[in-house]
Amino acid sequence: MEFSSKLIEKAVNEMSQLPGIGKRTALRLVLHLLKQPKEQTGFLSQALVAMREDIKYCTSCHNISDSMMCEICANKSRNHQIICIVEDIRDVMAIENTGQFRGIYHVLGGKISPIDGVGPSQLNITTLVEKVKSGSVNEIIFALSSTMEGDTTNFYIYKQIADCEIIISTIARGISVGDELEYADEVTLGRSILHRVPFEKSFKNN
Amino acid sequence: MEFSSKLIEKAVNEMSQLPGIGKRTALRLVLHLLKQPKEQTGFLSQALVAMREDIKYCTSCHNISDSMMCEICANKSRNHQIICIVEDIRDVMAIENTGQFRGIYHVLGGKISPIDGVGPSQLNITTLVEKVKSGSVNEIIFALSSTMEGDTTNFYIYKQIADCEIIISTIARGISVGDELEYADEVTLGRSILHRVPFEKSFKNN
Ligand SMILES: [Zn+2]
Ligand SMILES: [Zn+2]
Repeated sequence: MEFSSKLIEKAVNEMSQLPGIGKRTALRLVLHLLKQPKEQTGFLSQALVAMREDIKYCTSCHNISDSMMCEICANKSRNHQIICIVEDIRDVMAIENTGQFRGIYHVLGGKISPIDGVGPSQLNITTLVEKVKSGSVNEIIFALSSTMEGDTTNFYIYKQIADCEIIISTIARGISVGDELEYADEVTLGRSILHRVPFEKSFKNN
Repeated sequence: MEFSSKLIEKAVNEMSQLPGIGKRTALRLVLHLLKQPKEQTGFLSQALVAMREDIKYCTSCHNISDSMMCEICANKSRNHQIICIVEDIRDVMAIENTGQFRGIYHVLGGKISPIDGVGPSQLNITTLVEKVKSGSVNEIIFALSSTMEGDTTNFYIYKQIADCEIIISTIARGISVGDELEYADEVTLGRSILHRVPFEKSFKNN
């Protein structure tokens, strides 16, 4: 791509560093900003820099937070003996939205992925293992995506805490509520059958 | 969407002002920036602000440029009597890439669109009409998209210069080179037949 302006070229190049944003999309976004008042670009830039510079992580669960301890960890009415292990803040938000979980979280910050150069030491695993070994935890729930990386991460953590006397579970997989059986993929449908639940339990929390 | 941090919320809100970027995508992009070194966010913000603050437009054709006159307008070996009328810089880039056009451009900066609140006065139309009326132009080529807004804009300009003795053309529409006839949409295929070209002409510039 040849640009008639170095300023445009630089903005497009920086923008297209973002995942899923190609050069064409970046150019579209940059041209949009040019049509908007200057303030909009200023606000966007300030918000990004402030976020990146001043972001804090909860010292207990590593969730993104504006204070030392996030609202969930600081909430005494939640069950601090049940820890749900997730990849990132988006999973916390998704599970919180269901209103079905009253325990706390542990945010790993990613999954073990040799291809992407992510090893266990780059994830928040040590603090989790320490927490479990301290004896304050009753149950941990693995809620990582069921990909090879997710399974590897689950198993890596599992090996380190297998001798602790706690309940270790994973979230149930199955076909979505409202989905037609015939359109479900085999693996998911298979799990739905394998992990079937007692009928009375199935309409409990609806 | 409820966020555990105001900094994240603000960054996501600003990011999702961009066209085609919803809140979920914005959150994904923002979390990506958090995983990268701080410098990346700094470079991105600086590039956007510098672009927005310091951008210049060619005083002759309104193309985005780093100087008073863009490289195309400043190029004396190009034919300044043929003007191709386009919507924005992307169209200039696309046509330049073909290597088929040796005239100059006039960048309108948009299309007339009552729905989006864009009237003729917000576009670079006056300078074009003046240029044509000054007598220095031999031909203008309309190269706007063939939407209702594009056609409206073409016609608005056409009315103001219809009495000038110049050639007025539009770029040819037809099915793409290499496309199968059976998959082309009717309107496009119809135009291909209507605007058929002499056979000898069809393999000239290939
Ligand atoms: Zn926390
Ligand atoms: Zn120019």
